[in-house]
Amino acid sequence: MRQKRFFLSEDLIPRQWYNIVADMPVKPAPMLDPATRKPVTEEDLCRIFCRECARQELNATDRWIDIPGEVREKYTYYRSTPLVRAYGLEEALDTPAHIYFKNESVSPIGSHKLNSALPQAWYCKQEGVSNVTTETGAGQWGTALAYAAKTFGLEAAVYQVKLTYEQKPYRRSMMQVFGAQVTPSPSMSTRAGKDILTANPNHQGSLGTAISEAVELAGMTPGCKYTLGSTMNHVSLHQTVIGLEAEKQMEMAGEYPDIVIACFGGGSNFGGIAFPFLRHNLEGGRNTRFIAAEPESCPKLTKGRFEYDFGDEAGYTPLIPMFTLGHDFVPSNIHAGGLRYHGAGAIVSQLLKDGMMEGMDIPQTESFDAAVLFAKAEGIIPAPESGHAIAAAIREALKCREEGAGKVILFNLSGNGLVDMPSYDQYLRGNLIDFRYKKD
Amino acid sequence: MRQKRFFLSEDLIPRQWYNIVADMPVKPAPMLDPATRKPVTEEDLCRIFCRECARQELNATDRWIDIPGEVREKYTYYRSTPLVRAYGLEEALDTPAHIYFKNESVSPIGSHKLNSALPQAWYCKQEGVSNVTTETGAGQWGTALAYAAKTFGLEAAVYQVKLTYEQKPYRRSMMQVFGAQVTPSPSMSTRAGKDILTANPNHQGSLGTAISEAVELAGMTPGCKYTLGSTMNHVSLHQTVIGLEAEKQMEMAGEYPDIVIACFGGGSNFGGIAFPFLRHNLEGGRNTRFIAAEPESCPKLTKGRFEYDFGDEAGYTPLIPMFTLGHDFVPSNIHAGGLRYHGAGAIVSQLLKDGMMEGMDIPQTESFDAAVLFAKAEGIIPAPESGHAIAAAIREALKCREEGAGKVILFNLSGNGLVDMPSYDQYLRGNLIDFRYKKD
Repeated sequence: MRQKRFFLSEDLIPRQWYNIVADMPVKPAPMLDPATRKPVTEEDLCRIFCRECARQELNATDRWIDIPGEVREKYTYYRSTPLVRAYGLEEALDTPAHIYFKNESVSPIGSHKLNSALPQAWYCKQEGVSNVTTETGAGQWGTALAYAAKTFGLEAAVYQVKLTYEQKPYRRSMMQVFGAQVTPSPSMSTRAGKDILTANPNHQGSLGTAISEAVELAGMTPGCKYTLGSTMNHVSLHQTVIGLEAEKQMEMAGEYPDIVIACFGGGSNFGGIAFPFLRHNLEGGRNTRFIAAEPESCPKLTKGRFEYDFGDEAGYTPLIPMFTLGHDFVPSNIHAGGLRYHGAGAIVSQLLKDGMMEGMDIPQTESFDAAVLFAKAEGIIPAPESGHAIAAAIREALKCREEGAGKVILFNLSGNGLVDMPSYDQYLRGNLIDFRYKKD
Repeated sequence: MRQKRFFLSEDLIPRQWYNIVADMPVKPAPMLDPATRKPVTEEDLCRIFCRECARQELNATDRWIDIPGEVREKYTYYRSTPLVRAYGLEEALDTPAHIYFKNESVSPIGSHKLNSALPQAWYCKQEGVSNVTTETGAGQWGTALAYAAKTFGLEAAVYQVKLTYEQKPYRRSMMQVFGAQVTPSPSMSTRAGKDILTANPNHQGSLGTAISEAVELAGMTPGCKYTLGSTMNHVSLHQTVIGLEAEKQMEMAGEYPDIVIACFGGGSNFGGIAFPFLRHNLEGGRNTRFIAAEPESCPKLTKGRFEYDFGDEAGYTPLIPMFTLGHDFVPSNIHAGGLRYHGAGAIVSQLLKDGMMEGMDIPQTESFDAAVLFAKAEGIIPAPESGHAIAAAIREALKCREEGAGKVILFNLSGNGLVDMPSYDQYLRGNLIDFRYKKD
């Protein structure tokens, strides 16, 4: 009998994360203080981040970094996540490709975000922090942080992008079930929010704006630290638990991926699944392709410029060496809220610059076509973000059909779409449109 | 390291369902034709059901019934579901009890309902049926049938209880993603619906009413068969895959349950987890308690009468020997839509009459208190229905604390609450009330 799903026993759940920086031939350029143009230090970052996250961000040189025991124990609440052979999708596409997906959507909060929320909350707790704050786009990260904070006895305040706060009220409720305080962003509760609302009272919010608000709150509030769900090095580091598991599970399946695909917002779910496999490319043993699927309307990887830019809209963060559309870029109101971000993380940007991965632009309607096809074939309704990865996987699988090539394709199903149903409603009613990227 | 979750490898997923009727010392009384008062025959049932389901309902005498290979293959898309040791909940309750739950909420459609939707759709397909119809309360069953129908190439028409159609629009969308046609019930599309709306234009719907509509549609439409998500013998039969897996998983954990708990609407998730363990009571080797947790406002098990009654509001079904509040009982508008049903299935009713299980009434607010406590402790937001099972488990675990008794408690987490967030909103705002049961 052909096997559909692959799990790891709990003793095989990784005990260490993989730090790709140690293996990169060209290291990412340092983040700069915008005032002095000098590299930021751990002390600088510690003003808003907890110390261990700051250390991991700037000064982690080890290839492997231990997962704290208590964090690993909470991982066992939902990990290993299944690696799934997508027989249903393969049949629907009539492709000779072998398609696998890593199903991070089975996490209790519905996405991969918990993988980093748990360690970030735990480190904060160890350092005597009482409150954490953050921003959230689609609400996936905010929900993860709300649960992680509750788990380790912290209070959480979340700024949620106004568009998704209204489009996806269910995630706001989930955060509240876990005891978090949720504010739609831009809000009048911060200077950054006030400035933006004054300039544009109908601003629908963006990740960049919400980051500004959360960073400001952390900087102003004693005992409060900022946490981040994507983009930064330490977040991708925590997410490598995905790829490390997938590597062992692909071994169980007796295969190795020719192509690894993930959707791309800030880069954490992409890095999470890609970096552990990319290390074998870096070591010289493998030649896997890595595809980051981004929205056509927010194409920082294919149409952005590699330069120093702020991570947020208001310019509170350090300058980050990144592929960016500009920190004042206002993304279109696509339903994949988690992908509405102007820039890419420093590691991924360097890897892209060095030709070790590629970007692929997916129109919104194609992402929903793919998501619905996948739902019917595999039974799982994916998050709109994940629909981009599925669309890219389908493109590659159809190419395999044309070429008669039985390639092995692995993609990350970063989250489920159970609370994104209003987006599907719009799609089914034919009301979804594609937004093109326009340069100012 | 203590193990949190237990999975079965795919070769250990059951190949047969367990038919408890074969082992019951007193068999359920037969269903009767309301006109003739004679037992209904397979031919009678075949007017609306497919033949194999009719056969399983009335004439299955074997103890074990083979799971068709294609159905079992689709089971592997999400089974085995994990058996989980609820360490988080145990710690929150400070109880010496060992609490386990079978996590059916990881099914792609979010509940256990798929376990029966798949075989029902498959049997229909084998028999040349082209369309299936059904009713749904919370939308869990309708979503399952929509996906199962799509999987085996059938069209699906679902009557959804109006209250939940409006309270939980996301499930309507999920059904539509899978290609089903969804109609709020009572509707003007059937005689049953018209009659009810004429008598009460504000009727919020009930499972009983929606059943009437679907049965009428199946009876009037060539090539269309009716399917049912609970109550009937063949549905509980299919659900025994839950308990059969759980039995092997409890073995892996080195324990055996002293108490088995499930929420109770029509009885299928209860029967699913309970019957395989109950067989060891019937064999004489075990003395496990079985608790069916029902809403205080719809207490057919504790306050209903054991008598022949219709399964639906309009009186289209055969007369079923059941604990019932009367087929014209209009349940209160509680959020656990799947538990708003006036009667219990024939098997469970007989077992209750014979003292082999017990009912437990849970007020709505207690079910949400339990659900939120569970969410914070285990990370999973449960369906409001499942909140009743959790509340009962918590009652028993607290009793263990008082008595210093390290009992083993197993409950079925029948579904997740990700699309039930409006109910949680009301709870968090303090707007939820308890409905008492009132006899007319």
